[in-house]
Amino acid sequence: TKRYNITLLPGDGIGPEVISVAKDVLNVAGSHEGIEFRFQEMPVGGAALDLTGVPLPDETLLAAKRSDAVLLGAIGGYKWDSNEKHLKPETGLLQLRAGLEVFANLRPASVLPQLVDSSTLKKEVAEGVDLMVVRELTGGIYFGKPRGFSTNQKGEEIGFNTEVYATFEIDRIARVAFETARKRRGKLCSVDKANVLEASMLWRKRVTTIALEYPDIELSHMYVDNAAMQLIRDPKQFDTIVTNNIFGDILSDEASMITGSIGMLPSASLGESGPGLFEPIHGSAPDIAGQIEVHSVLRAACFLLVDNVNKANPLATVLSAAMLLRYGLGEENAAKRIESAVLDTLTRGFRTGDIYSTGKKLIGCKDMGEEVLKSV
Amino acid sequence: TKRYNITLLPGDGIGPEVISVAKDVLNVAGSHEGIEFRFQEMPVGGAALDLTGVPLPDETLLAAKRSDAVLLGAIGGYKWDSNEKHLKPETGLLQLRAGLEVFANLRPASVLPQLVDSSTLKKEVAEGVDLMVVRELTGGIYFGKPRGFSTNQKGEEIGFNTEVYATFEIDRIARVAFETARKRRGKLCSVDKANVLEASMLWRKRVTTIALEYPDIELSHMYVDNAAMQLIRDPKQFDTIVTNNIFGDILSDEASMITGSIGMLPSASLGESGPGLFEPIHGSAPDIAGQIEVHSVLRAACFLLVDNVNKANPLATVLSAAMLLRYGLGEENAAKRIESAVLDTLTRGFRTGDIYSTGKKLIGCKDMGEEVLKSV
Ligand SMILES: CC(C)[C@H](C(=O)O)[C@@H](O)C(=O)O
Ligand SMILES: CC(C)[C@H](C(=O)O)[C@@H](O)C(=O)O
Repeated sequence: TKRYNITLLPGDGIGPEVISVAKDVLNVAGSHEGIEFRFQEMPVGGAALDLTGVPLPDETLLAAKRSDAVLLGAIGGYKWDSNEKHLKPETGLLQLRAGLEVFANLRPASVLPQLVDSSTLKKEVAEGVDLMVVRELTGGIYFGKPRGFSTNQKGEEIGFNTEVYATFEIDRIARVAFETARKRRGKLCSVDKANVLEASMLWRKRVTTIALEYPDIELSHMYVDNAAMQLIRDPKQFDTIVTNNIFGDILSDEASMITGSIGMLPSASLGESGPGLFEPIHGSAPDIAGQIEVHSVLRAACFLLVDNVNKANPLATVLSAAMLLRYGLGEENAAKRIESAVLDTLTRGFRTGDIYSTGKKLIGCKDMGEEVLKSV
Repeated sequence: TKRYNITLLPGDGIGPEVISVAKDVLNVAGSHEGIEFRFQEMPVGGAALDLTGVPLPDETLLAAKRSDAVLLGAIGGYKWDSNEKHLKPETGLLQLRAGLEVFANLRPASVLPQLVDSSTLKKEVAEGVDLMVVRELTGGIYFGKPRGFSTNQKGEEIGFNTEVYATFEIDRIARVAFETARKRRGKLCSVDKANVLEASMLWRKRVTTIALEYPDIELSHMYVDNAAMQLIRDPKQFDTIVTNNIFGDILSDEASMITGSIGMLPSASLGESGPGLFEPIHGSAPDIAGQIEVHSVLRAACFLLVDNVNKANPLATVLSAAMLLRYGLGEENAAKRIESAVLDTLTRGFRTGDIYSTGKKLIGCKDMGEEVLKSV
């Protein structure tokens, strides 16, 4: 039996529910593949703030660093929205990313045949979309210094941040992106704003240089405003996209919404070595929890009364657990087992509110977990 | 007879063609309303680079400043893409915006009933979309200092930019946005990244303060990544959006593509006083010219052979001329006359390649101009 230590970070909002489902799925998938997990649950985000006064307690970071991989639920909520910066749940997530040095954030967005109707894009545009956003995660304007508040010469208050990239930061994320493209369809699109920003000019120069190491990959460059359009006009033109931290934040969320099933999308954040961080995309957008509720309330009203804590779609977290197995532990078979189980559950017609459509079987978070377990 | 001096800046690519159409339309619309225009054509962008060695010659800026309004075609092209920063066509556009101090960029995106099929979004999602992005245009990371290239402590090259906003910059754009919302449906959504960036925290604070002056306007705040999603999920939830320079660049292009008819979308850039700058949205994205060609070649192949310089859709520039009349000169009647003529031309079934659909009459840029003239 192989043994792995997994740090579970349920976090806020729907986090605990979806993590609990993913944990069960990991246990069962592992048991089939001769893998045993030891889980350690630690607080992060708003939950940690309420408990300890800081959004990332030292113990949490230490536990995460010592484990083989980290699975995170969701972070943030209205309750802490007007906190000062160092007391925001989001700051805990950023500290965790920085602390684990997970500079490469892989965000797949593909339209599953079972869910093509969930997209607000026309069927012929959405069908077959299968792209991967590789987002730089520990640099750029999220972490650049100087930053803060000050007064200008006229005595007015200013708020400022620094977008900055060094060659090594660009080089290493570019290599991850080229490698990723190589395992996919061999096309990489680098997104920047090199017609305006010096940080983007250096980005484009380095990506072009690293491309020489990957003659088999077809590289293109696109300005970020154009990329935001092209994702809607024709998302199928993309295979792998590589971009900086803030553009990646925006474009990966846009790409995920194109699939129409953001409640389904996982992500992996990886460093050179050390444990990876795995989390659903939805967990990061503070508004989503609420919206999923509105969705399912509206859609489910005629079907059943859903309680307030059972409306989340756990599949993004379950698929994040699959990414954890693949990218974090190298357990490809167990990863595939989970992914097949999810597809099978969808094929059997089960849907949470956010991906519900007429004729399907509407269930809550826990029941979705039970159904996946049957297929694992 | 009223007389106005208009500076025409045709610029690059399809710029000269579309400006020539808009000029004719202005002349005819003006003649119906007792308005006479004096036009002065000046070089900007790549055209200016080729002619004078700089992307914004002093004479061009001076002429623009002295006129009553400025109409711009398009800027940029692959030819100058690897120029150094101060020799990029885009730099000329940025210098023009700064020189005219046009800090408020109004970018409407609405889905015309005639063109709802052009959108890649499902009909029920696209139908009735009518939103306005108010983008801050002369501040933020586009202009913030320090910026440039340097080496860090490890001796590695870095590229850096500064995102910075002062209270007065936020206050004045917020007021324009609240006023805009007041003339529309009374809803304003301010988009930022206040969970991470100090510049955004100040933005949110000031917008919230200015809101006290507009108790009749319903204000909401949204993170930029969520906004990128919501624009796709349900664009009809938006009335007026206000955001910073870089987020506005990305989101307004995304919003424009949601309409499916980016070749139709105008923009106005206004300052406290002095002439406004009016330009089609498409003109600013260097790739669009090429894409419109691909579009029309594909779609038109079975109909007719379109030559290389006649594929552009001039309607965005024609509608920018209408915005020029409304916001730049206060000539509401002439503005409405042009807008009705455009709608009428569409209703009569004429389409350029980018907005063509089966059963419609495919025509080129010049002919589209002729058809609009018939309706003015
Ligand atoms: C919560 C927030 C700090 C985070 C980010 O901006 O990176 C989120 O939006 C994400 O994309 O993971
Ligand atoms: C061409 C470029 C400098 C410009 C911008 O980024 O502002 C364009 O994309 C726009 O939106 O007008």
